[in-house]
Amino acid sequence: MRPFVFINAAMSLDGKISNDRREQVRISSPEDFRVVDRLRAESDAVMVGIGTVLSDDPKLTVKSEELRRERVERGLPENPIRVVVDSRARTPLNSQVLNQAARTIVAVAEVADEEKVELLRRRAEVFVAGKERVDLRALLEHLYSIGVRRLMVEGGSEINYSLIREGLVDEIRVFYSGMVIAGRRAPTLVSGESFDTPVEARLKSVEPLGNGVAVVWEMRTANLRKV
Amino acid sequence: MRPFVFINAAMSLDGKISNDRREQVRISSPEDFRVVDRLRAESDAVMVGIGTVLSDDPKLTVKSEELRRERVERGLPENPIRVVVDSRARTPLNSQVLNQAARTIVAVAEVADEEKVELLRRRAEVFVAGKERVDLRALLEHLYSIGVRRLMVEGGSEINYSLIREGLVDEIRVFYSGMVIAGRRAPTLVSGESFDTPVEARLKSVEPLGNGVAVVWEMRTANLRKV
Repeated sequence: MRPFVFINAAMSLDGKISNDRREQVRISSPEDFRVVDRLRAESDAVMVGIGTVLSDDPKLTVKSEELRRERVERGLPENPIRVVVDSRARTPLNSQVLNQAARTIVAVAEVADEEKVELLRRRAEVFVAGKERVDLRALLEHLYSIGVRRLMVEGGSEINYSLIREGLVDEIRVFYSGMVIAGRRAPTLVSGESFDTPVEARLKSVEPLGNGVAVVWEMRTANLRKV
Repeated sequence: MRPFVFINAAMSLDGKISNDRREQVRISSPEDFRVVDRLRAESDAVMVGIGTVLSDDPKLTVKSEELRRERVERGLPENPIRVVVDSRARTPLNSQVLNQAARTIVAVAEVADEEKVELLRRRAEVFVAGKERVDLRALLEHLYSIGVRRLMVEGGSEINYSLIREGLVDEIRVFYSGMVIAGRRAPTLVSGESFDTPVEARLKSVEPLGNGVAVVWEMRTANLRKV
């Protein structure tokens, strides 16, 4: 069994999640930011790929004090578990995702340098699965086994691609934002190689939100949460 | 003065207008197709870049017989004027856009091979403006002078980029479709280089349409239709 998995992302109206200089562009609006914070507070774990850690150094914690308190009142830790997919153990030791604000799991592959893995073990839990790349099914199964029922994926485009290709995504929530970033080489929501046939999704909900539109897409190909 | 200019495009939920093999992917839905046909019928001219002619060989005509008849009843030709932006006169002579179904203008730059331009002149009107690349402002001014008040741009990502960069776009209508195409190198709505600062757009309307969402964005930076 695996958790319910949903990807959350904000993109410019022309489909970019950053510019071609890989700078952190504020694509989300204040209204969307509040929704995203609530989605995070309602999740048992939040996941990112190593690319996002290296480019954005996110905290991945719940920003609203009220939402954190609500979690505690429900008997939960203040913040959801943070999960970093990092096949080669490249997470910098001073990354914010390794701070003490929440439990953190770094998933690495067997190829990862042992010394680096040992250093990571002092600051986080390390989960090893897969030879060259993290075995995402095994990771999701592990997360389920420790109680994770709802997993929020916060990027970037490579981890999104791997999860969708494996049929491990139930929903994608996209905030389409009122701006044009442009750029032939700017990253989009899902990178990798194009699928032979596009993967279908069903329109679940649409909501204007600030100067943008929040859309939830339901993946038809998700493997019904069995791993 | 220039016409009112709007871009129309369909993209996958992950921001692609084709796959990384540049194949023609059916991204639009039947419901969107009908809206697009009506938008075309309501326009005085439709414009594409040479890339779209080479990859898709579109007819750019109104598909609905009823809509064509309505145009004729209003004293208009069956189809809007077709405009190809083709700096180096690469439009193949057997392109569907050069058929007899509608008036066609091929805009070329001064660098275009004279022989090719002469061959094009036998099948279409040729408008020359700009040294290396078509001067888009001059082209829009010309279109205005021959009566074009409403211009629909049907792609692709390079012509979209050039028009937005020059502040010549009033609205962008995007149909976000329920499918994931994926691909690091798949073309998106707007290519070129990323802008230093994203170009702002205002959310004008949102409408669920078939298995997707149609959104109209109003460009804030449009140069108020003065050329």
